[in-house]
Amino acid sequence: MANVLTQEDMAFYKEAYLEAQKGLKVGGIPIGSVLACDGKILGRGHNQRVQKGSAMLHAEMDAIENAGRLPANVYERCTLYTTLSPCSMCSGAALLYKIPRIVIGENQNFMGDEAHLKSKGLELHILQDKDTIEMMAEFIRNKPTLWNEDIGEKE
Amino acid sequence: MANVLTQEDMAFYKEAYLEAQKGLKVGGIPIGSVLACDGKILGRGHNQRVQKGSAMLHAEMDAIENAGRLPANVYERCTLYTTLSPCSMCSGAALLYKIPRIVIGENQNFMGDEAHLKSKGLELHILQDKDTIEMMAEFIRNKPTLWNEDIGEKE
Repeated sequence: MANVLTQEDMAFYKEAYLEAQKGLKVGGIPIGSVLACDGKILGRGHNQRVQKGSAMLHAEMDAIENAGRLPANVYERCTLYTTLSPCSMCSGAALLYKIPRIVIGENQNFMGDEAHLKSKGLELHILQDKDTIEMMAEFIRNKPTLWNEDIGEKE
Repeated sequence: MANVLTQEDMAFYKEAYLEAQKGLKVGGIPIGSVLACDGKILGRGHNQRVQKGSAMLHAEMDAIENAGRLPANVYERCTLYTTLSPCSMCSGAALLYKIPRIVIGENQNFMGDEAHLKSKGLELHILQDKDTIEMMAEFIRNKPTLWNEDIGEKE
């Protein structure tokens, strides 16, 4: 994989964004994710805090969970797409499975553990996608309590 | 919380160990965990790779998930008990929710992200519990393929 963004990346990123919108439409936290490998989507998902009462299923975790059990030699060829900079937990999941590359919609509304990921050699691409930034900013304005719960912050 | 182990800690650790044994008895990976706060167990669980086909529900994740949605001011008073040194993902979950203290059964069969946790100020207690070490060592000897899958390692 070259250290550049491809048209395929942008197509898969759009799927992650559509996952975020799926969550938003049913009152959930609008963060979406896709795990892809060798040109195919293996798993897709979105934040399930509201829908499933889940503290663990952030979007990235939901996408990786929905991909099912995979051996290490698949993860090492994957790219993880996510609409928001991955928190410590989701970053840790990428590190556990040695997913080498993450395409991130934006890190303006939340800065995750990017420094730690970079220090471990992961390739990160930050899109700063305008639609994604606006979607997340509006959600945080409207539902600050829910948002703070999701990132483990007090109000 | 004093920086020492209490009788309550040992009682809660035993529950984490019993969770690991529950998993072992049904052919699962024998790692168990308990999340406790103010003298009460809020969530308990064990590795669900085999039982639920889950790549995300390591023991610690299962325990935190089973505790349900909690606000930040609860997590900050919790202790997480786990039979095995927490991997990057589980360490990341503890960091996300600012769980300040982890009691770990052993780190001889697997060394997780303890250095990163310590660098972030978490209080770690490593028991090096003989029964836990033997249980895990036997499992790894018997099912190396399953074990490698769980920690994202190639064989």
